[in-house]
Amino acid sequence: MSKTINTEIIAVGTELLLGQIVNTNAQWISEQLALNGINTFYHTVVGDNLARLTAVFEQAQARSNVIIVTGGLGPTEDDLSREALQQFSNIPIIEEKHALQKIKQFYDMQAKPMTPNNKRQARVFKDSIILENKVGMAPGNIVDYKGVKWIFLPGVPREMKQILTDEVIPYLKKMNGEMILQSTVLRFIGIGESALEHKLQHIISTQQNPTIAPLAQKDGVTIRLTAKAKTAQQAQAMLQQTQSTILAEVGEYFYGINNESIEETVFTLLQKHHKRIASAESLTGGLFADKLVSLHGASTVFKGAIVCYDPAVKENVLHVPAEIIKTKGTVSEECAIALAKNIASLLHSSIGISFTGVAGPNEIEEKSVGTVFIGLYDENGYEHVEKCHFHGSRAQIRYRAVLKGYELLFNYLK
Amino acid sequence: MSKTINTEIIAVGTELLLGQIVNTNAQWISEQLALNGINTFYHTVVGDNLARLTAVFEQAQARSNVIIVTGGLGPTEDDLSREALQQFSNIPIIEEKHALQKIKQFYDMQAKPMTPNNKRQARVFKDSIILENKVGMAPGNIVDYKGVKWIFLPGVPREMKQILTDEVIPYLKKMNGEMILQSTVLRFIGIGESALEHKLQHIISTQQNPTIAPLAQKDGVTIRLTAKAKTAQQAQAMLQQTQSTILAEVGEYFYGINNESIEETVFTLLQKHHKRIASAESLTGGLFADKLVSLHGASTVFKGAIVCYDPAVKENVLHVPAEIIKTKGTVSEECAIALAKNIASLLHSSIGISFTGVAGPNEIEEKSVGTVFIGLYDENGYEHVEKCHFHGSRAQIRYRAVLKGYELLFNYLK
Repeated sequence: MSKTINTEIIAVGTELLLGQIVNTNAQWISEQLALNGINTFYHTVVGDNLARLTAVFEQAQARSNVIIVTGGLGPTEDDLSREALQQFSNIPIIEEKHALQKIKQFYDMQAKPMTPNNKRQARVFKDSIILENKVGMAPGNIVDYKGVKWIFLPGVPREMKQILTDEVIPYLKKMNGEMILQSTVLRFIGIGESALEHKLQHIISTQQNPTIAPLAQKDGVTIRLTAKAKTAQQAQAMLQQTQSTILAEVGEYFYGINNESIEETVFTLLQKHHKRIASAESLTGGLFADKLVSLHGASTVFKGAIVCYDPAVKENVLHVPAEIIKTKGTVSEECAIALAKNIASLLHSSIGISFTGVAGPNEIEEKSVGTVFIGLYDENGYEHVEKCHFHGSRAQIRYRAVLKGYELLFNYLK
Repeated sequence: MSKTINTEIIAVGTELLLGQIVNTNAQWISEQLALNGINTFYHTVVGDNLARLTAVFEQAQARSNVIIVTGGLGPTEDDLSREALQQFSNIPIIEEKHALQKIKQFYDMQAKPMTPNNKRQARVFKDSIILENKVGMAPGNIVDYKGVKWIFLPGVPREMKQILTDEVIPYLKKMNGEMILQSTVLRFIGIGESALEHKLQHIISTQQNPTIAPLAQKDGVTIRLTAKAKTAQQAQAMLQQTQSTILAEVGEYFYGINNESIEETVFTLLQKHHKRIASAESLTGGLFADKLVSLHGASTVFKGAIVCYDPAVKENVLHVPAEIIKTKGTVSEECAIALAKNIASLLHSSIGISFTGVAGPNEIEEKSVGTVFIGLYDENGYEHVEKCHFHGSRAQIRYRAVLKGYELLFNYLK
């Protein structure tokens, strides 16, 4: 039995009404629902005020059959989401043993005293569906009132996303029981959104199902393919075919699918070639290393890094010849390759990569802000220096330098 | 005569409900209103559907006295904001000559034919206040219906912001009787939101002006104080007084105000004490260093870092005695302090900090996931090792370790 779902999303929190934070929860939830063919008709934001909260809830009860509430499940006195529904539903609220235990354990492990208000987080509606919060304290909760499904989720995005993905989407899909939507995201690096779209225009403009949606991302460009079909197998087959058509055109820039990051791809390539890498980082300050260490099992491909922000460290620890620093400067092709070679030999790694440049706001050695040299060295004799010029803030220049480093590694190793 | 303004913001557009874009307009408008002492009680997002739009508008008419509508003023058939108000107000809509001229000129300049639907953008309510759109086509519009002020603005952020800043804010300030609102954010580290709120409950519950709003952040807890007064001096004095009252209770956790980050505070303290620091990072993989290098002028306090993710690097480059690694392990108090000492001497820095621990998902040396040792060494003889146990994902454990490192430095240097 299928039933049309008319969802509305209510985000609770005065910080939203003060403009301190943006309501990204509503956007993300709507996106997930849309990907699963579920309508969202309203977003509402209301503050931590019981009267206004209750009025908004009563109205939602009257116009929607699935209501997703984020926020207001926390430990403090102004977390009032459950109370607002109780005002007119009179459904009893109980303390959920499992969640309560988890909260107590947390404070025991921290050897911190648990203030009484923390128990509030374990409260759920009687005879309701409890949604485990795998990354935080307050569980999610689905409760039925007069045929309307009320879904309560924490406001913390990470917790909300885990519960929505693991529990709520499957629940709503069952409720929706209709066509199956499946999508894959293709990830590209080294090409801009408009160039990619231009190359694929003839495919995009004629294609209905799967849909093809390019999107510029912080770390490259993605294309989301979404197929609608009677069965998952049919949808998968359609996605496969469109993917092949697209990669026939722009495969050279393709590095991964879905949430795979460029560092994961490089990680896999390093493992495949049995190579380990080390980095010498000046302006990037350890950001390249951090991205590799963020991956489980990093030690199999990553030896370590030296952050040589201070010129003295470049000379004394990384043994860049004083001559190079004096004549060419620390922001130079010569310094970059010396750093890449020396970090590899110092840390006994097969590959060395180096970053030296001007993050700004001030010039260095008369080199303009955004000038970056990336050195790449492989013990098999390969040497390459990429001279780049990046635009943007100090943070953007540093980030783009690291991204370029991963792009160079990807193109070298693939 | 001043009158309390209760604003609500309605953003119109199906693309918002599909999660294709985030409702940054509501956040930005709320922020501007809050800075000017004007309350926002609701945000609503509704699609380009006349029936739902009208229902939302009628409800806004019943509960607010200023309603700001963004979007739905464009040229196409599904731009219906004016029509929705007209449904129940029956206020006539006319074409505004000046705007109409502008649209015609635009198309003349482009030497393009003007499609008739473009004239729709010049439509405003009869006998209303017209707000010039200096960066786009459709003018803004303020119209009174039964004492409720309806303010229509384009959805394009650039156009909305220009009209709100130049026209709407001055209008509302006059309506509000020119009360001045000032706020400051107090930043705390080393205490949780619930514990902080528990300690301050007696103040928060009795305090009206300034208002006191605690908020858990990724990097600690903040309290926003917002004072409303006739003059800026009065507001500042009230903020000062409440700040002192709060810091008398929880001053030990206070590290900065407004947007100051803990790394900036530590940066300033290092400069003040003429100390430079270097880090030896295992599980944190350069994240500590990255935060310092992200600050302009980092070289004045930061020498560099060695990311010693590989045990061999701990032993060969950072010279941790093999004996320690064999008997105590790399995740140990002894290894942490050796790393802190040796990084300081290797990079000639006065202070050394080290991070070694288990980021997960797997145990290391039978130490459980989340176990982290942070070593702190000062050439003046100070030595400290903090044993921590962090919860969460690999990313969270690594982030919390770095944050704890800054907390330890702050408490040592302050």
